[in-house]
Amino acid sequence: MEGAVSTVHSPGRKLTLKFGLSADGQPTYQLQFGSKTVVQPSRLGLLLQNQPGLDQDFTIARLDSSQHDDTWAPVWGEVKSIRNHYKELAATLTQEAKGDQKARRLVVRFRLYDDGLGFRYEFPAQPGLTYFTVQDERTEFNLPADHKAFWIPGDYDSNEYAYVTSRLSEVDTAPIEVIQQKAAPHTVQTPLMLKSDDGLYVNIHEAALVNYPAIMLNVDTKGFGLSSQLVPDATGAKAYLQAPEHTPWRTIVVADNAPAVLASKLILNLNEPTTLTETSWIKPQKFVGVWWEMHVNKAGWNYADTSNIKLAGTDWTKLKPTGRHGANTANVKRYIDFAARHGLQSVLVEGWNVGWEDWAGNWKEEVFDFVTPYPDFNVTELQQYAASKGVKLMMHHETSSAVTNYERRQEEALRFMKQHGYDAVKTGYVGRIIPRGEHHDGQWMVNHYNRTAANMARQQIVVDMHEAVRPTGLHRTYPNWLASEAARGNEFNAWSSGNPPEHETILPFTRLMGGPMDYTPGIFQIQLESWNPGWNKGRQVHTTLTKQLALYVTLYSPLQMAADLPEAYNQHLDAFQFIKDVPVDWDDTRILLAEPGEFITTARKAKGKDEWYLGSITDENAREQTVKLDFLTPGVQYQATIYADAADASWDDNPMAYQIRRQPVDRNTVLPLKLAAGGGTAVSIKPVSK
Amino acid sequence: MEGAVSTVHSPGRKLTLKFGLSADGQPTYQLQFGSKTVVQPSRLGLLLQNQPGLDQDFTIARLDSSQHDDTWAPVWGEVKSIRNHYKELAATLTQEAKGDQKARRLVVRFRLYDDGLGFRYEFPAQPGLTYFTVQDERTEFNLPADHKAFWIPGDYDSNEYAYVTSRLSEVDTAPIEVIQQKAAPHTVQTPLMLKSDDGLYVNIHEAALVNYPAIMLNVDTKGFGLSSQLVPDATGAKAYLQAPEHTPWRTIVVADNAPAVLASKLILNLNEPTTLTETSWIKPQKFVGVWWEMHVNKAGWNYADTSNIKLAGTDWTKLKPTGRHGANTANVKRYIDFAARHGLQSVLVEGWNVGWEDWAGNWKEEVFDFVTPYPDFNVTELQQYAASKGVKLMMHHETSSAVTNYERRQEEALRFMKQHGYDAVKTGYVGRIIPRGEHHDGQWMVNHYNRTAANMARQQIVVDMHEAVRPTGLHRTYPNWLASEAARGNEFNAWSSGNPPEHETILPFTRLMGGPMDYTPGIFQIQLESWNPGWNKGRQVHTTLTKQLALYVTLYSPLQMAADLPEAYNQHLDAFQFIKDVPVDWDDTRILLAEPGEFITTARKAKGKDEWYLGSITDENAREQTVKLDFLTPGVQYQATIYADAADASWDDNPMAYQIRRQPVDRNTVLPLKLAAGGGTAVSIKPVSK
Repeated sequence: MEGAVSTVHSPGRKLTLKFGLSADGQPTYQLQFGSKTVVQPSRLGLLLQNQPGLDQDFTIARLDSSQHDDTWAPVWGEVKSIRNHYKELAATLTQEAKGDQKARRLVVRFRLYDDGLGFRYEFPAQPGLTYFTVQDERTEFNLPADHKAFWIPGDYDSNEYAYVTSRLSEVDTAPIEVIQQKAAPHTVQTPLMLKSDDGLYVNIHEAALVNYPAIMLNVDTKGFGLSSQLVPDATGAKAYLQAPEHTPWRTIVVADNAPAVLASKLILNLNEPTTLTETSWIKPQKFVGVWWEMHVNKAGWNYADTSNIKLAGTDWTKLKPTGRHGANTANVKRYIDFAARHGLQSVLVEGWNVGWEDWAGNWKEEVFDFVTPYPDFNVTELQQYAASKGVKLMMHHETSSAVTNYERRQEEALRFMKQHGYDAVKTGYVGRIIPRGEHHDGQWMVNHYNRTAANMARQQIVVDMHEAVRPTGLHRTYPNWLASEAARGNEFNAWSSGNPPEHETILPFTRLMGGPMDYTPGIFQIQLESWNPGWNKGRQVHTTLTKQLALYVTLYSPLQMAADLPEAYNQHLDAFQFIKDVPVDWDDTRILLAEPGEFITTARKAKGKDEWYLGSITDENAREQTVKLDFLTPGVQYQATIYADAADASWDDNPMAYQIRRQPVDRNTVLPLKLAAGGGTAVSIKPVSK
Repeated sequence: MEGAVSTVHSPGRKLTLKFGLSADGQPTYQLQFGSKTVVQPSRLGLLLQNQPGLDQDFTIARLDSSQHDDTWAPVWGEVKSIRNHYKELAATLTQEAKGDQKARRLVVRFRLYDDGLGFRYEFPAQPGLTYFTVQDERTEFNLPADHKAFWIPGDYDSNEYAYVTSRLSEVDTAPIEVIQQKAAPHTVQTPLMLKSDDGLYVNIHEAALVNYPAIMLNVDTKGFGLSSQLVPDATGAKAYLQAPEHTPWRTIVVADNAPAVLASKLILNLNEPTTLTETSWIKPQKFVGVWWEMHVNKAGWNYADTSNIKLAGTDWTKLKPTGRHGANTANVKRYIDFAARHGLQSVLVEGWNVGWEDWAGNWKEEVFDFVTPYPDFNVTELQQYAASKGVKLMMHHETSSAVTNYERRQEEALRFMKQHGYDAVKTGYVGRIIPRGEHHDGQWMVNHYNRTAANMARQQIVVDMHEAVRPTGLHRTYPNWLASEAARGNEFNAWSSGNPPEHETILPFTRLMGGPMDYTPGIFQIQLESWNPGWNKGRQVHTTLTKQLALYVTLYSPLQMAADLPEAYNQHLDAFQFIKDVPVDWDDTRILLAEPGEFITTARKAKGKDEWYLGSITDENAREQTVKLDFLTPGVQYQATIYADAADASWDDNPMAYQIRRQPVDRNTVLPLKLAAGGGTAVSIKPVSK
């Protein structure tokens, strides 16, 4: 690279970073993987409102190199300990005073790992820069060729798109149906997964998104450069900052094989450790919920039918019930019974509180109050009933994106939760944000999510955020933030064209790079029409039944729903055994086979136990795989229970045909897996007691 | 009026309203005062987003006429009972269904009083109109001639302008220095005071501003029409409404003499009665405060000097004090002592809480937390000290317009207040609003102020809002909302070109039409330089000393500050006696003489006592007046104490020269008043004890 003044090699010398300034003082970086170019020389910097940019006219004041190597234990996770091993370069850049503008300093900090690069901008406290507004970020990722990309359209308010696989040159979001508010036609979201023709797997995202908007990427379809598109606020500005401050980390995970991308802990490593000292109250968990029955239109969230209701002044007992309100006391007890019988920890209930009659689509501020139950939902009775069964109820706070309303009521809502025995909450942000003009992925909302996680932690409440900004590893900092949705979940199969069979093979390479997803797997009644004849005609989940089981392993989350109805599970209690068995916290993880858009086979070791669970999924193509079980403990005999597609199964033709077989295995076993089209296999491996 | 279908006369037939539809179904109204035209035929209606306007294609479905006459007692006020006597016309207008658009109904409700007209739009619940967004209001006030107008520029965020007196044809706000965000060059604010060449006094404003933006008026400088300019939200929309709903009342107060305008209770009558049943905790009051000493730069709000501080993580005890922090325990005790000695109810303390170091101008969200005192302000010690002296401390919540921050902390802030014995709060909204893009006078903020008043009422807290939207009589509904600023207060004399001597003669005709103002009168040390030599060189309050006294009567408020410093009052305890004596709640009020921009003489009878207080003020011109005391009780002898300008006094030359004389008076007395240029006279009239 012309003008390169500093070269850094990753600890194992797999990656090489070059950093320097161009002739006019623009900071520039470049990244190599061995002899292969990951990122060609690319600009760095920021443009500010009402003052000169922090993107050129720099000189290098100092370069600080260091290295770091330690190991830390997450509160929960895919592995029990994580090594954080990097070389660091901190470049302090200065601009001279000019006119009224005092001299300014900017630090670009790089952390180079063997599996990728993170870098961020830091704004030290200084007379020339106190309060400032970021108008745009100049960060570029100039790719060397027309890579294959797995992308979703840039949308300032939603990640709930099916992925498109195309060359960079073919990126065009225009034909795609908008979910909320699309950015320009060549803007895509992160995590962006890329594969080069010369065999590199590259993932671009960010870590530790705090007090800053999410980044999206503008694709130059001719030159294959990616430039930054920060999500704007209501006035068009991007971020209001006060020095000392820094941006999130820009992350580039790189490997020459796909499993290594999934195994990367770079994003977690770049997040701050939690400040919580007591974390025993944070419990990974499985749950059922009064939820899917609404998605398949067997029941409703709403208690009455009206398209015009006001939160204040309505006497809910006077409304005429629809007779199909899901969150009624008797129905919730049914779920509590089911959870208790099968050892699931908690029961989510959506639609328990007043306001669902016309909650969405009206950009209305006073929709929910988070504390008033419908007349047929008895809070105290259910609190006592759940407690008597050893089951927890999970609170639901749908905000309808009226976030100002939620914020002013949040303290009372959390108090209500604690009074009634709730210590987990699913939040939701459907619709357009209030403050009007703000976006789900803008700085103001990013601060809201993080503040909410912190508020919840103070009350020892765990949280699962839906329709929030996509994660960036902040669950390291906020371990009570168990999961988010922030992608196209299983629910889309219920009422849209659905998720194509490849969908779940892409998610771990994209959305899940930032953190756990509440995907809500475990749908057994694949054909949905049966729940409500005449509704969802011909609609189905686009997988086989056993692929739904395998997702509990391939889609990592400390919070996993058994999303189907008790009556669906009662038809297949043999297969449900896997959901009962599968843990939600792990000591170890092995990505055995993976290729984005095609297949993933993952094995994980249960937390504190010598049990392994394996999930293997495929896209629309049937596959045969063999997996070596050489991760098992030497000298130990295990029994594997294999939940596999039946020989004649396929996602579109015969999705619910499965077979369960048991076989003894040990570390020398090679297990053949036969996956139907759109299918999957789940395996539990438990030691044979002596 | 062409097409007039309905004519209404006011109860005493002073005013005549005509209402009808134009040929293309546009609702239109017209207003006469006897034979004089107040408003020429003018359009009514609204434009909506994404659906046809509610401004034409109407037919009249029904016209309902009624009359109303009753009398009610305000919790506090200028008079002890108020008659509400009007003729009402409710016109139900319908539009036929067209294409996808169902038929719609709109009600225009008129209330015609002898002293003016109120009308509003009502949106009944109906299938064709549930949720809707107002894009613009079509309401017009077509004036018949080029009236003299007393106006301030349209500004979506501030009313803190000096008034301009000009013909309508001369309205041009462009040359005026902006305070926050000016609207178009011919847009002015309400209350707009007008005087016609044929002797009509007309005041245009609104009543009961709830869930709607404030209205401003676009002046057609050629045709003298006024059209509506609603304050927009961040997206440019004006109001998000849900039927059933209605707009605020548009008000036109009309009289053939100026005192009658000031005496009008039309705006209060158009507001809803309070729902509070227990109001004994609502106490009109006088207060002193650690406040003016900051305005004259004798002390500071801030504890330390820095232009860069963060609320979170700062250890305030580690900062280096400036040594001139006003809100220190010892200084506050000095004010408590002074209040106790002179029977003033409370002591405001600004700058008591952390965050003032760089609180303004940075559009920063986390500025104040409303609960953390500076290290030199001992909350508990002052709570006990004030209690021991029988004085209340008044809380101060400056939000720096980070309203989201205030809302999420308000519950805790009120809890803190109650824990520490505060039951009154002054709020402030300096700077640009967060949510960014919203305005002080837009619907979202209007809802915030009203919600805040309601929240305070639930906690039995009275509130005084600064930099809030100008009042519209809502103190009838929220009697704990004692006062607002929302105009150019006395403080401007401390650090700007100041308020011209005419200013206080215009305020009652404009800003005060909507409700009480915390103007902070009572500055005795007229020359300000003396507080901090070298600061405010040559600056002064633009009145005489005794005009400051008269303001306690001419500027009605149940909350009146004795705004100057104790050491200033201690120099003039004889004059201070009037401030000690003057009540803040009244049984009766007589506007004896008034002309906007020139003079006002008002007499008020103390609540529950046979004592009268008279205030008389003039603009920059010296005046001699005589006032008949024929309002005094027959057969009762009184002693008047007259606080008058000295013979050689004038606001600019000799402002602090006054004389106090006493004389016996009764209802036959004619009192000569001699007002200096920019001067005033205050009189207390107490019965002579037998």
